[in-house]
Amino acid sequence: MSDTLELLSAHAAFGGAQRFYRHASNEIGLPMKFSVYLPPRAVAGEKVPALVYLAGLTCTEETFMTKAGAQRLAAELGVALIAPDTSPRGANLPGEADSWDFGVGAGFYLDATTRPWGLHWRMESYLIEELLPLVGRKLPIDLERVGIFGHSMGGHGALTLALRHPGTFKSVSAFAPIANPSECAWGRKAFSGYLGEDRSAWAAHDATELMKAQKAAPYPAGILIDQGLADKFLMEKQLLPEAFEAACAGAGQPLTLRRQPGYDHGYYFIQTFIDDHLRHHASQLNG
Amino acid sequence: MSDTLELLSAHAAFGGAQRFYRHASNEIGLPMKFSVYLPPRAVAGEKVPALVYLAGLTCTEETFMTKAGAQRLAAELGVALIAPDTSPRGANLPGEADSWDFGVGAGFYLDATTRPWGLHWRMESYLIEELLPLVGRKLPIDLERVGIFGHSMGGHGALTLALRHPGTFKSVSAFAPIANPSECAWGRKAFSGYLGEDRSAWAAHDATELMKAQKAAPYPAGILIDQGLADKFLMEKQLLPEAFEAACAGAGQPLTLRRQPGYDHGYYFIQTFIDDHLRHHASQLNG
Repeated sequence: MSDTLELLSAHAAFGGAQRFYRHASNEIGLPMKFSVYLPPRAVAGEKVPALVYLAGLTCTEETFMTKAGAQRLAAELGVALIAPDTSPRGANLPGEADSWDFGVGAGFYLDATTRPWGLHWRMESYLIEELLPLVGRKLPIDLERVGIFGHSMGGHGALTLALRHPGTFKSVSAFAPIANPSECAWGRKAFSGYLGEDRSAWAAHDATELMKAQKAAPYPAGILIDQGLADKFLMEKQLLPEAFEAACAGAGQPLTLRRQPGYDHGYYFIQTFIDDHLRHHASQLNG
Repeated sequence: MSDTLELLSAHAAFGGAQRFYRHASNEIGLPMKFSVYLPPRAVAGEKVPALVYLAGLTCTEETFMTKAGAQRLAAELGVALIAPDTSPRGANLPGEADSWDFGVGAGFYLDATTRPWGLHWRMESYLIEELLPLVGRKLPIDLERVGIFGHSMGGHGALTLALRHPGTFKSVSAFAPIANPSECAWGRKAFSGYLGEDRSAWAAHDATELMKAQKAAPYPAGILIDQGLADKFLMEKQLLPEAFEAACAGAGQPLTLRRQPGYDHGYYFIQTFIDDHLRHHASQLNG
């Protein structure tokens, strides 16, 4: 396994360091980019807890760091931020860039099992088996104190990876997640393409189905979700937070699902509530 | 004068409203876009003070609102934010898009006097005579309490417009401004192109020369400037804050010029210090 990180750019920010890296990924079989924000105490050499942020359709490793306004409070709380890209890039598979909701920019944070996608579209193994261990070895990040959050497709990723890898992630939250992908158009397109038409394989990557299968609350300190009520994708039934809410109630999983009147699906919504999510995680990771 | 504002998009943000507008500009002779953030108390109907933010080369009316992280504290302080575009667009003048530092995206916040630029490149008259009166008529903004700030080319714009229109602006600050454009490559190119080769016309649009000509401190409550010391444009002598500093000393103008070790020219630098600038203005506009 290659441990070489290529530093693409670095910027001082709030007394810490905003960095963009590229590395040769074994799991993906292609170069991958990611971004890291290190708070001042990490720059000073202390191992700090970290939050993995998963972005939505069409985004990159830059989106969250540029638009979410998270670094100010992350600096104060002493939490690192890690944002991967949203899919492999450069595979040149037929049709990979034909849709904004499938292929490039739309990895859905799972390992594809179909041809040709299974060759490179292995975002779950990339994140869990490669990227987290890598940043744990190369950066002052404490892998025993890692939380995960994300937005839209990345909210799906955060919830499913948290439920599939409860030993890896100590806290979880989401902004407007695709909460029941088996039952929405985005999810059916992605799961059909990446996992095949046999729906029996889909439940393992659907946050609502995963929660339904829990025998005890996997995150007893609670899950936080913010959902804007002026979000057009909520109205189009792409997100279905009510299904996840019902599954949490059934499993005894504490959930704070905040329905925010007037807020849409974009980063002004995320900016508005980012501090609450950072505090949600920090209280569990630092506590 | 047309008073019609076309609302291009609106987003709830921190309890207030982030809006993007287009209108037919008489001064420019073309459609112009701008963005406004209204804090909660303005959305509730109260007239609020406002800050005009001028962006740098290549930016648009979106850059500041997306990247600076200013809305959180603006909401709390009850200050509106107004960000115009950085030049006319759509004039289709020969060569207007050949350079990133001249023409489109590089209006330098002055009225050009040369052909063909003088036809449309009238950003100073646009801002002072048209945009501010327009937002004063159409939005809950108190034109008696307006400050101005900006970054790089927009820092030049903020300092020069504040000095040329002290009755319009009650407070001023800048991030990494082009502080003495007559003496740097960016400024010489812009002034030659927009004002002609006769340097006697340049001083009226050069913050350092304008300050040298002051007989008393135009902003007795002080001017705030942040400058990163890892800013490559500082090293390339494009910014020259020391010249403006000397001119302020000569004029008795209080100046807080903060040299920030490690910070570069980008929006992570701006994000880091934006709160200090908002407080600098709010204390003067609300006081």
